[in-house]
Amino acid sequence: MMLQNPASKYRAFPAVQLTDRTWPNAIISKPPIWMSTDLRDGNQALIEPMSIEKKLRMFDLLIKVGLKEIEVGFPSASQTDFDFVRILIEEKRIPDDVTIIVLTQSRDELIRRTVESCVGAKRAIIHLYNSVAPVFRKVVFGMSREEITSIATTGAKLVKELTKQHPDTDWGYEYTPESFSTTELDFSKHICDAVIAIFEPTPGKKMIINLPSTVECSTPNVYADQIEWMSRKLSRRDSLIISVHPHNDRGTAVASAELAVMAGADRVEGCLFGNGERTGNVDLVTLALNLYTQGVHPGLDFSDIDEVRKVVEECNQLPVHPRHPYVGDLVFTAFSGSHQDAIKKGFAKQEADAIWEIPYLPIDPQDLGRSYDAVIRVNSQSGKGGMAYLLEQDFGLVLPRRLQIEFSRAVQQVADQTGLEITAEGIYNIFSKEYFEQNAPYAYQSHKMVEDTCSDEPVQIDIAMIHHGAPLALQGGGNGPIDAFVDALGLDIKLMDYHEHSIGSGANAKAACYVELRLANGPTLFGAATDSNILTASFKAVLSAVNRQLARVEAAEGKVAA
Amino acid sequence: MMLQNPASKYRAFPAVQLTDRTWPNAIISKPPIWMSTDLRDGNQALIEPMSIEKKLRMFDLLIKVGLKEIEVGFPSASQTDFDFVRILIEEKRIPDDVTIIVLTQSRDELIRRTVESCVGAKRAIIHLYNSVAPVFRKVVFGMSREEITSIATTGAKLVKELTKQHPDTDWGYEYTPESFSTTELDFSKHICDAVIAIFEPTPGKKMIINLPSTVECSTPNVYADQIEWMSRKLSRRDSLIISVHPHNDRGTAVASAELAVMAGADRVEGCLFGNGERTGNVDLVTLALNLYTQGVHPGLDFSDIDEVRKVVEECNQLPVHPRHPYVGDLVFTAFSGSHQDAIKKGFAKQEADAIWEIPYLPIDPQDLGRSYDAVIRVNSQSGKGGMAYLLEQDFGLVLPRRLQIEFSRAVQQVADQTGLEITAEGIYNIFSKEYFEQNAPYAYQSHKMVEDTCSDEPVQIDIAMIHHGAPLALQGGGNGPIDAFVDALGLDIKLMDYHEHSIGSGANAKAACYVELRLANGPTLFGAATDSNILTASFKAVLSAVNRQLARVEAAEGKVAA
Repeated sequence: MMLQNPASKYRAFPAVQLTDRTWPNAIISKPPIWMSTDLRDGNQALIEPMSIEKKLRMFDLLIKVGLKEIEVGFPSASQTDFDFVRILIEEKRIPDDVTIIVLTQSRDELIRRTVESCVGAKRAIIHLYNSVAPVFRKVVFGMSREEITSIATTGAKLVKELTKQHPDTDWGYEYTPESFSTTELDFSKHICDAVIAIFEPTPGKKMIINLPSTVECSTPNVYADQIEWMSRKLSRRDSLIISVHPHNDRGTAVASAELAVMAGADRVEGCLFGNGERTGNVDLVTLALNLYTQGVHPGLDFSDIDEVRKVVEECNQLPVHPRHPYVGDLVFTAFSGSHQDAIKKGFAKQEADAIWEIPYLPIDPQDLGRSYDAVIRVNSQSGKGGMAYLLEQDFGLVLPRRLQIEFSRAVQQVADQTGLEITAEGIYNIFSKEYFEQNAPYAYQSHKMVEDTCSDEPVQIDIAMIHHGAPLALQGGGNGPIDAFVDALGLDIKLMDYHEHSIGSGANAKAACYVELRLANGPTLFGAATDSNILTASFKAVLSAVNRQLARVEAAEGKVAA
Repeated sequence: MMLQNPASKYRAFPAVQLTDRTWPNAIISKPPIWMSTDLRDGNQALIEPMSIEKKLRMFDLLIKVGLKEIEVGFPSASQTDFDFVRILIEEKRIPDDVTIIVLTQSRDELIRRTVESCVGAKRAIIHLYNSVAPVFRKVVFGMSREEITSIATTGAKLVKELTKQHPDTDWGYEYTPESFSTTELDFSKHICDAVIAIFEPTPGKKMIINLPSTVECSTPNVYADQIEWMSRKLSRRDSLIISVHPHNDRGTAVASAELAVMAGADRVEGCLFGNGERTGNVDLVTLALNLYTQGVHPGLDFSDIDEVRKVVEECNQLPVHPRHPYVGDLVFTAFSGSHQDAIKKGFAKQEADAIWEIPYLPIDPQDLGRSYDAVIRVNSQSGKGGMAYLLEQDFGLVLPRRLQIEFSRAVQQVADQTGLEITAEGIYNIFSKEYFEQNAPYAYQSHKMVEDTCSDEPVQIDIAMIHHGAPLALQGGGNGPIDAFVDALGLDIKLMDYHEHSIGSGANAKAACYVELRLANGPTLFGAATDSNILTASFKAVLSAVNRQLARVEAAEGKVAA
């Protein structure tokens, strides 16, 4: 096989005639309005769409992060979405400063159902769309420009009429010419102007015109040109909020959104960590933190980015990549000795209130609740000398990636102190000391547990421990054994990650367990333990993490007192 | 916690004074020179760097893909890298049209060792770098501009002198002012000009000036301005190849590379699927295929993109994200009914030799050896009604993601034929028919295997099968059981993916096995089987996949004959 010559099959995207563009001189000095479509565009692109319970978790997370505009679904396309919108409204889960948005195609029965889903909401935006690109007009619908325009205006009139019947709701309007980025600009302007004329927005009561790159099909400067062209030419510009909705087919959605904001867009639609159809929507987290590193507060809170990742990964059942900006497992690591050296010198000279200026780190990891890790290699670049490899080969321990990174700090310390190359056994001893032998203040002794998976009763547990040298008996309950164990401890613990595997087989088999948790508002830390009983291994791993957390707090307090 | 106000800690990146920039009007009409740094920048950023064996696999892949410039290591920093370069040269593994590149800091002993590593090569480029940004000058080195310049020029002189001693090699030169993107432009020009004056390149014998965004720190238009500024002002421009090396800290490396090429860069350094320090280097695959979709042949071959992914994932031990452009598991799927409908109409009207014009699909998946999948949902958006969920809950089958997508095609067909909602049992029956009951032409009967993991002897296997109704006995050998089984079959099979898990426990436990393979040059297809013996399950799964492949070939030939 060989990649064929594409010249007769694909063509270059036509440039926009806009040689007097102004966006390349612009600098973004305030955040756009953010709109999350995690519960709509993101959700519809999942192999397993979210259950109502997961949708509620996601909604609560979005609120917590600070989103004020949330597209909650496509209620006319899915009963689950309709029910979810009703739950939000009837259970009064929508804060006063948050506006929900619902998407609908511009079709009579779908619009009726959509408006119905929002009745009783304090504020709601009806988001109307139809496809306008040539390929849709020609291939999908077989319709003329005027017929396509009529679909939009007929729908807009109906939306206006139906929403007027429910004056208790503060209605907003959004119109999307779908596939805008592959549509002739003059036609996009024509259809948007026609819809604007119906909604009659004013500077005091604006409407949203959303111009998506439904499929990303050009370098991002072309999209910026398109947005600047529209922003200059649309009627009633002072009564419009121009919105963009970039997809990532060419891997440039973040750039497209940024250049589009420079070109005049007021609002960006996207998803956390870039979920969405195919290659996904633009990633709101990256956009927000890109602003942050330029000294502009994005108005969104990612000060506990690991927690945000955890909820999103659980809701979407999709991983965040280890190299994803700001949040990936590997993005605050340095492997090369020269990088580590430069970063170390940078930290040493960084003053508390000065501008952040550390080589290779564009943001202070602590601002996101994370930490910088210098990953030491036991045997540089041998490929068979890494800590993880040695622990697995010689001791059967398979460390999760984030634990590998965390553990490298402990190895680094020993290496710095001794200056020697460390053997496999040396690595194991450091690991054992750092994780397995963390027995104070909490040391596990035994547990008794009652679990009946046929009943709805929670799991009940009794634990016997040594705490600061004295016996301690605790009881707890929960959905599962670890949940019950954590409940019994009665500490403010958030479990972030959990891995368990067997070592060996038969009568001598053991389980190794690794848990990552956050105690109170501390950093996330791992604990680890082995035991012949898989539950005991888990409990000991939780205590290992808790003890490590407490030791850290104590050390920090000691430092302050000193 | 709450994200703090960044205004006193971070500052906006300064704009470049270049209001007469020309790059926003440029269109990329030919590919840049591609340089892969997978074996250097990519490799040094791995938790477990590649072994020599993996490096050779990666090198061979890069050659196969069509890379002509390959940075093979940092020989003065790592014995493995040094040895690897020697193997390439001494075993004559470098094709005549391929140039290797080796990186070195500008320090006497490192340069000597680097040149030494390349002796005997037909062609080699010595890639010299030193850090030039203000934070390095101030914090890391405590040196003036002139002292930093002197590091570069002293190194360049030594490189020139040492390479002259080995006239049998065709030497090339590359200089990188590290952290270019955060350096004052006038100083970057000054130091590059000083190095250029030493190497004295000519239009017939150019040298490379590589201008990295070592840390991505601005919107990509600023980087493009920087490149255009340098491209206009550097001395001996006609004797230079201007190269870029964008990192992805702000998620815009692809855009940065594209705009930089529009701004005058001739060459791009990056990695397959964007591996590299922290957030990674720019992804060469995305860049190449972005060009391809604009009708420009990139000169690289990704016509079997799944195979490329497989090798890269194995070498890097890092996953490619399911939404990664062009290659992710989910990027050629459509979940929404309206998308599926539009795509279906598009395919129906697409003529063989016409411009590619399918809604929502910016590239023909077949060009990359992939296929488009309309993923049907059994129970739209319920979150507990998906095929995968039902198969797991009711039958204990945990399908790998790509198999879920592939299987949805079979469900789609049945759904299209019957128009009915399909029950969990219905789903299972379709799965069973599509995968478990694929017994022709090959049906498994029994196997005998000899394996001795204490010896170096390959695994030996005897298989008894029914083939087209007649008994067939085969023998084979290999590194492991499946390897030996595939060897015995004697077919052109490439195993792409393998998953096995237990169903139930104790005496009734079964194993379910899923294998993805390619037969000859066909598409990748899955096979699946269950058995109480884990090896038997694997063998039956391989045969299931082979039988499905052969059925497909037969159907295609039948069609041609008809």
